[in-house]
Amino acid sequence: MIGIISSLLKKLWGEIMSVVIDGTELCSTIQDTIKADIKNCMIRPSVAVIQVGDSISGQYFSSKKEKVCSSVGIYFRSYKFEDGTPELTIINKIKELNNDEYVNGIIIELPLPVQYNEKRIINTISNGKDVEGMTDINVGRFINGKKALIPCTALAVDYILSQNNIQVAGKNVVVVGRGKATGRPIANMLLSRDATVTICHSKTKSLAEYTKNADILISATGIPCIIKEDMVKDGAVVIDVGISGFNDSVVGDVDFDKVSKKASYITTVENGVNTVALAMLLQNIILCYNTKKNK
Amino acid sequence: MIGIISSLLKKLWGEIMSVVIDGTELCSTIQDTIKADIKNCMIRPSVAVIQVGDSISGQYFSSKKEKVCSSVGIYFRSYKFEDGTPELTIINKIKELNNDEYVNGIIIELPLPVQYNEKRIINTISNGKDVEGMTDINVGRFINGKKALIPCTALAVDYILSQNNIQVAGKNVVVVGRGKATGRPIANMLLSRDATVTICHSKTKSLAEYTKNADILISATGIPCIIKEDMVKDGAVVIDVGISGFNDSVVGDVDFDKVSKKASYITTVENGVNTVALAMLLQNIILCYNTKKNK
Repeated sequence: MIGIISSLLKKLWGEIMSVVIDGTELCSTIQDTIKADIKNCMIRPSVAVIQVGDSISGQYFSSKKEKVCSSVGIYFRSYKFEDGTPELTIINKIKELNNDEYVNGIIIELPLPVQYNEKRIINTISNGKDVEGMTDINVGRFINGKKALIPCTALAVDYILSQNNIQVAGKNVVVVGRGKATGRPIANMLLSRDATVTICHSKTKSLAEYTKNADILISATGIPCIIKEDMVKDGAVVIDVGISGFNDSVVGDVDFDKVSKKASYITTVENGVNTVALAMLLQNIILCYNTKKNK
Repeated sequence: MIGIISSLLKKLWGEIMSVVIDGTELCSTIQDTIKADIKNCMIRPSVAVIQVGDSISGQYFSSKKEKVCSSVGIYFRSYKFEDGTPELTIINKIKELNNDEYVNGIIIELPLPVQYNEKRIINTISNGKDVEGMTDINVGRFINGKKALIPCTALAVDYILSQNNIQVAGKNVVVVGRGKATGRPIANMLLSRDATVTICHSKTKSLAEYTKNADILISATGIPCIIKEDMVKDGAVVIDVGISGFNDSVVGDVDFDKVSKKASYITTVENGVNTVALAMLLQNIILCYNTKKNK
């Protein structure tokens, strides 16, 4: 339906304007509510972020998290380990944080340098403090349709769609990318919302054949401008989860300038999914804080 | 490539003949090996099946499992509870079986009558005895790419494809059905084999638009003959996981007589995925038995 209307509009006016989703505006109420709630807390909620090595992306995401946590009053602890630190040192730090009653959430900045056993390190996090929804038990509970801590990007995509009243049930949704923190949980989230979901990735042949038919196209590859104008259907909803660059400015998966002339709704890289995902992270931290408090 | 060859053959001879996969033949080596191994065991491997109520499908599957287990020498215990038995009685039976060192695998015949908390009951099974790969932790480990007990139908589909040298990487795979024991794990399995995977289900609009493009079409709905001739591409591989009927004879998801004239490979309902899945169940039981033995 969106497609037909936008095609008609395009015929009438030559070109349509997308609704560009404003992540900051979309989340302002969430942040204001959390901020107001924390003002009344005797003990502030707290999150610990562990970085290993000095990757630019790790620093970028960690500093974004620190900023948003500080803005609402969540106490932010940062632990930085040099690349080469023994794995056991990191494991022991996580165990210490698991046992620290004043820590509500634990985040490991991924990817870790290759020599580390990422799965083992992630699964050391207590399930109740796994605010990015990465442990086996949280993933299994999410897939099995049970209460779980869910990856923030999946929550963000769901929130963006629902807040814009974009119907998902029965739609052709194409997710490009199958990362454990992004593509896969996003696909699972939209499948649970009754979308017909296709997962494309680096081994997909003729990617455009899939993307061109998508009512809702979600790209989460981290490959700059992989989604071009001729790969998108008129009137499609285009959600850009990918982010790369980090040196001077960040770049998304979507060729925004051109694709925005075809899409009905579109997100930007600076103020889209990743901005909303930060608000979802705040919600997950508060969820862990309240669960602990009510025990 | 398969599609091109079969189209050419069809042009030459008017109609192609499918390779009809013989599940029994495909698994004979597995069963023979397990049987020979068990002959040398002082303590036989053992599996317990719990049935609640008297559904025809539960009786059908349970008796199939009993037969195949007996044929290789796995000790089979059957526990039947009337519909209406208190949930705690079933939970306590599972706990008893978890603690019984002579029980290697525990199976709950699904679906349970509606008043039972299926998720709670399944997650009472010890992860190391969950031979149908249904607990949250086994599902999470499987999704996260770790060693796990994997649902038998997903293993069966993977085995059928690999034993017939059917390439999966890069192929357009369409899975119809999103059940937790069938469609979802099959989709995850083939995604891990680098297929581009689309998951269709009851809310999918224009199902045929997806199935017609599938290189490999897998149907797991339990709706008799939902997959018709005009929904299948020439030369496609068609795997029928669905099974219904159970009174006089079982019926599959695929209109076999007609679809087999278009498919390059096809399975039957009587001697296809479900037959291979029983062999995979034997392998899972032996895996649990050996894991325990080596502890």
